[in-house]
Amino acid sequence: PFNACLISRHADMLLQYIDIIGTFAFALSGTSAGIRRGFDIFGILVLAMSTAVGGGIVRDLCINATPPSGLVHPVYLITVIVAVFVGVFFQRLIIRMEKPTLWLDALGLGFFSAFGAHKTYEYTGEILLSLILGCVSAVGGGVIRDILAHRPPLVLTRDIYASAALIGAGIELLGVTGVIDSRWSIWLAIF
Amino acid sequence: PFNACLISRHADMLLQYIDIIGTFAFALSGTSAGIRRGFDIFGILVLAMSTAVGGGIVRDLCINATPPSGLVHPVYLITVIVAVFVGVFFQRLIIRMEKPTLWLDALGLGFFSAFGAHKTYEYTGEILLSLILGCVSAVGGGVIRDILAHRPPLVLTRDIYASAALIGAGIELLGVTGVIDSRWSIWLAIF
Amino acid sequence: PFNACLISRHADMLLQYIDIIGTFAFALSGTSAGIRRGFDIFGILVLAMSTAVGGGIVRDLCINATPPSGLVHPVYLITVIVAVFVGVFFQRLIIRMEKPTLWLDALGLGFFSAFGAHKTYEYTGEILLSLILGCVSAVGGGVIRDILAHRPPLVLTRDIYASAALIGAGIELLGVTGVIDSRWSIWLAIF
Repeated sequence: PFNACLISRHADMLLQYIDIIGTFAFALSGTSAGIRRGFDIFGILVLAMSTAVGGGIVRDLCINATPPSGLVHPVYLITVIVAVFVGVFFQRLIIRMEKPTLWLDALGLGFFSAFGAHKTYEYTGEILLSLILGCVSAVGGGVIRDILAHRPPLVLTRDIYASAALIGAGIELLGVTGVIDSRWSIWLAIF
Repeated sequence: PFNACLISRHADMLLQYIDIIGTFAFALSGTSAGIRRGFDIFGILVLAMSTAVGGGIVRDLCINATPPSGLVHPVYLITVIVAVFVGVFFQRLIIRMEKPTLWLDALGLGFFSAFGAHKTYEYTGEILLSLILGCVSAVGGGVIRDILAHRPPLVLTRDIYASAALIGAGIELLGVTGVIDSRWSIWLAIF
Repeated sequence: PFNACLISRHADMLLQYIDIIGTFAFALSGTSAGIRRGFDIFGILVLAMSTAVGGGIVRDLCINATPPSGLVHPVYLITVIVAVFVGVFFQRLIIRMEKPTLWLDALGLGFFSAFGAHKTYEYTGEILLSLILGCVSAVGGGVIRDILAHRPPLVLTRDIYASAALIGAGIELLGVTGVIDSRWSIWLAIF
């Protein structure tokens, strides 16, 4: 039990890094959408923040994990602010990239669906709920971004996103419930 | 008390059937909207699920009945999946029907407003809140559907929906609070 | 402690008045948006109510203050109904005013951001969360109004709103945490 605890603590730290990378990717996708819509700097920040933590907030509200971690821990806001500055600074580059929003979205999906499914299962022990809220964690931010940017949600028109999220959440749940060794499932889910 | 308990248990079972029928009608309306917007199968599924359980989720979050029952019990997801298959299979028929989305919406309204008002009153004992959340349960799913499908919410432009929901919730509350015999109120509310 | 309690009770009463004025202003802005979109009376009522209490509901859900006070206390619904009648009755005047929605929005912002930050800090003791949810309380209703009215959210395209909200929440938090005398901070935040 001591060893397991130690391993789990290391895994938790790694998950935290992954969480920040995913947050950054999502915030950048929100920044890119905000620049394209001609939003002002504060509008871009709100859009980036919503994209980054929106899905997680919906998940946290549904499992009663209040206040939502995405709003409490400064690390998320700081990550989002950095992403906004990077996005605004390199905006010419980002706009030139063919479908940067699409591409950046994909980056965060695997992370967030596995992460969301894991947290939901820990809080509730419900398999189906974990699967659904895993997907919600992953695609929710993008849906909120598109609603705020007043355009049809990308995730609903492109199967690949939702499928990726579903697979991520599914693999992670196999791990959490012991079908697959849980130390590996999160990595499988991401890649 | 024993008899009352038995009756109440039967009524609960009936309510559950009604709940599933309402869920099916709402999911079908979401499916129809998704097909019209040219969404892919997963997008249609998300839209159908949002329409069917969206209003109930908002209600459950407001009364702190977490995790929301619409996401926990497999019966809702299964009902939605069946509705999506029925909708996609008979889509020619559905698209030919003059205003199928309007029609299907109306079907679920009476069910859900009474049901939502009932549950809210059970959890909180607040009359006004039950009235409001009864309406939210009923029209919330349709509003979320229209936002996701990127069109102005129908319920806000057509009085008949909201009125139906309000009357449904109102009648049910008269029953729950003992003004009308509670065994009849739910049926009155539906028809 | 007795004196402080008395003062605090008076301050609470004043805050309640301010809350109602802010609710009225927000509801009027929702009414105005509904009239412009050609919504029916019930649609206008829903839009006014969402604008008035929407931000507060999101805040209350995030700090687990359920059921949300905006839906429980009749005073808010009554204020909204009065605002809708005033708005519909004087609609010619409101439509003639150059940018009434913009103007009315601004009125409620200072109130709600300080109020929201205060309540969040009381419930959770988290500074960053209070700052964010203060802004959410203030701009959330307007965002929900614009989403329901199917137009791009004004708050995201006009910096001045969000900035006002942020400043309001920030000043109030300085007060709550004791940097500024808390009896004055709320007034500073509003003006």
